[in-house]
Amino acid sequence: MDQFEKKLEDIEENVRLEQSEVSMAEEVRAAFVSFKTRYGAAIAFHMQQSTNPTQWVIEQAPEPKDVYWPFFSSSFMRRWISKLVVIVACILLTILFLIPVVLVQGLTNLSQLEIWFPFLKSFLTITFVSSVVTGYLPSLILLLFLKIVPPIMEFLSSIQGYICHSDIEKSACNKVLWFTIWNIFFATVFSGSVLYQVSILLDPKNIPSKLAVAVPAQASFFVAYVVTSGWTSTASELFRIIPLFCSLIRRPFSKDTDDDFEVPSIPFHRDIPRILFFALLGITYFFLAPLILPFLLIYLCLAYVIFRNQFINVYAPRYETAGKFWPIVHNSMIFSLVLMQAIAVGIFTLKKLSVASTLIFPLVVLTLLFNEYCRKRFLPNFIAYPAEVLIKRDREDQNDRTMGEFYDKLVTAYQDPAMLPIHFSDNGESLNSPLISSTV
Amino acid sequence: MDQFEKKLEDIEENVRLEQSEVSMAEEVRAAFVSFKTRYGAAIAFHMQQSTNPTQWVIEQAPEPKDVYWPFFSSSFMRRWISKLVVIVACILLTILFLIPVVLVQGLTNLSQLEIWFPFLKSFLTITFVSSVVTGYLPSLILLLFLKIVPPIMEFLSSIQGYICHSDIEKSACNKVLWFTIWNIFFATVFSGSVLYQVSILLDPKNIPSKLAVAVPAQASFFVAYVVTSGWTSTASELFRIIPLFCSLIRRPFSKDTDDDFEVPSIPFHRDIPRILFFALLGITYFFLAPLILPFLLIYLCLAYVIFRNQFINVYAPRYETAGKFWPIVHNSMIFSLVLMQAIAVGIFTLKKLSVASTLIFPLVVLTLLFNEYCRKRFLPNFIAYPAEVLIKRDREDQNDRTMGEFYDKLVTAYQDPAMLPIHFSDNGESLNSPLISSTV
Repeated sequence: MDQFEKKLEDIEENVRLEQSEVSMAEEVRAAFVSFKTRYGAAIAFHMQQSTNPTQWVIEQAPEPKDVYWPFFSSSFMRRWISKLVVIVACILLTILFLIPVVLVQGLTNLSQLEIWFPFLKSFLTITFVSSVVTGYLPSLILLLFLKIVPPIMEFLSSIQGYICHSDIEKSACNKVLWFTIWNIFFATVFSGSVLYQVSILLDPKNIPSKLAVAVPAQASFFVAYVVTSGWTSTASELFRIIPLFCSLIRRPFSKDTDDDFEVPSIPFHRDIPRILFFALLGITYFFLAPLILPFLLIYLCLAYVIFRNQFINVYAPRYETAGKFWPIVHNSMIFSLVLMQAIAVGIFTLKKLSVASTLIFPLVVLTLLFNEYCRKRFLPNFIAYPAEVLIKRDREDQNDRTMGEFYDKLVTAYQDPAMLPIHFSDNGESLNSPLISSTV
Repeated sequence: MDQFEKKLEDIEENVRLEQSEVSMAEEVRAAFVSFKTRYGAAIAFHMQQSTNPTQWVIEQAPEPKDVYWPFFSSSFMRRWISKLVVIVACILLTILFLIPVVLVQGLTNLSQLEIWFPFLKSFLTITFVSSVVTGYLPSLILLLFLKIVPPIMEFLSSIQGYICHSDIEKSACNKVLWFTIWNIFFATVFSGSVLYQVSILLDPKNIPSKLAVAVPAQASFFVAYVVTSGWTSTASELFRIIPLFCSLIRRPFSKDTDDDFEVPSIPFHRDIPRILFFALLGITYFFLAPLILPFLLIYLCLAYVIFRNQFINVYAPRYETAGKFWPIVHNSMIFSLVLMQAIAVGIFTLKKLSVASTLIFPLVVLTLLFNEYCRKRFLPNFIAYPAEVLIKRDREDQNDRTMGEFYDKLVTAYQDPAMLPIHFSDNGESLNSPLISSTV
């Protein structure tokens, strides 16, 4: 026991030396700056400070819990290059995702399985088993592959140069949304090779007519998709099966008591794209296959009830979103509407109703104009608070007695966890207790 | 004489009544606000003031001479709708411009002329005349039609909702540039109908291969174009023929003496697009027809000498451009480079040099990345002055003794010419002499 205590003290000493060395040697090229008023902070944030706009990059500080430290002090160039690399990786992943999925699905045909696992031969000849394997296994594999997409996208966003978890999650949400639309909607509709999909995108003139042929053919698939993926995902949300298993496995090895239980936060980048994708299905299919609507309605009611319960009883918000996910929802809705109108144009052209297809065009233009108007009218409020609001809040703060306490807290609120004093051993001489126990 | 004097006084009285009525009755929904410091003005400009971003639209005040009054007090919606209407009009003009040109050119064939003007019959049979009429008249008509494009575009920009002449000219410059590239470069290269041109744009996959076939075929035309249009336009710039004729015609009817002669300003929206178009020709044709380079070099030297002379001796700047035309030049250059690389890809593919055409792709990507980097690094400086510069200038101003005088002038600097006191008659009781005599 004493020996380990000694060892731990040695390690602590080394860590402390390392920390002090780092903080002495390296000038950290980033800082948190606090302002007396919100208005003052907003001024500093909105003005370009130096003549070289890439030299001083100013961002609004996230909440202390929300800071993501790895990119905190990196330069503009490093973050810009990270961003470019991630965008390329993300596009490649989105385009090439289906290749491994199709390959793995190919391995699940019966003859292949019998060659690999000869001992299964007698088992696989049972009709029920073979129908499950051939009928259900491929779509299960697709679903499992899709399950790992949100974590991958979150990882990609985390190396993209953001300094807070909320930005990472927002960016991942966007990535997962477009990934889902591309790899479920378009890949199912144009059930061809990747090159075929890309070739359709490169031929914008014929997109409506090709959509008009391909989209209605998949109506029954998507009605089934709403039931299999939508209903089950909402139901499994209620049981939280994966966290349950994780917890069951981890419990015996962790020293945490039940009191230390960390309240989970909802992974927005997993759930928002899914709901938006069902909205896309509803908007594009409501006039082709109205049968989808009752299933969607049930899904939405179910989701409302279950997520309401989850928000109240299960999840705790990790940060204040400030409604910043709404523009993603808006853009997705506008895209769905334009896609629906494009399909309508294609179908009316296919059915030789030229008047109807001509009458759809103003609708597309009006939708895009509405989008443009909303960008002018409402988007600025998602980017920054107006001066009117800031000054009003500042005046309220002036009369607030608790502000002194707040300023005192501010000094120690933001601390890099790598620089925190450590106190595993008993000779704890931590100068100030950290406000945050971990960044996650 | 007395009778007219009386009449003039009556009219003046009416105008004054009208002015006072307007200024009493209608609340002008716009104002010039002056600030003690540049920094303060920049803060007000960069912050969104009210919760509704379309309610208080804040723009930096132009120079007093530069104000364009018609849209001064119009609302966000009116300006937004004007802008949309102008964009549509501009696209229609750009796409449909060639139809009247081709129609008028068709009228210049000899048999048509002989039918319309029988008395010319004997004259037109002379070989020299007929060759001039058939060979030169069509391109002369095209050039004359092109001459009226900059004024049309300036008119369109002026009803687009800008509040200063410099913005109008910048917007017109952009419009004329894209008009020129579309209606001279693409219309000549794809010498087909409008629909054919649009169909090529709608088929982006095949653009390089189509360019590779069509662009080299027009090399000799564009070499000739540099000589006929480039050299002559620069030479005619020296003589300023149209202003000379205008002046000759107007002189007898105007009461202006030579002392009142207004120094002209250079129409940027006419000359910048022309020079950029020749740059585009140089960049796209230097590897297809290197013969174009000496002609372009002579054009550029000629233009340098002549415009240098014009700037020093003829033109007076109407406003400080603050280098805001440079982003247009930058964008045009990037477009030229990408177009050149697309043509190169097409030609290498056509000649079955697949390695070469593959090696061009990274070049396109690098060009676009360079553009993106410049947008981040340099574009902000064209949009707003950084705080560093503003505060430095403000400190200089604090020690400046002449600032008091400047503030005094400021009060009367911005006056709507429609509201200026008029004093044609002798009983001039103008309260303060206006700093600006007219808005143009």
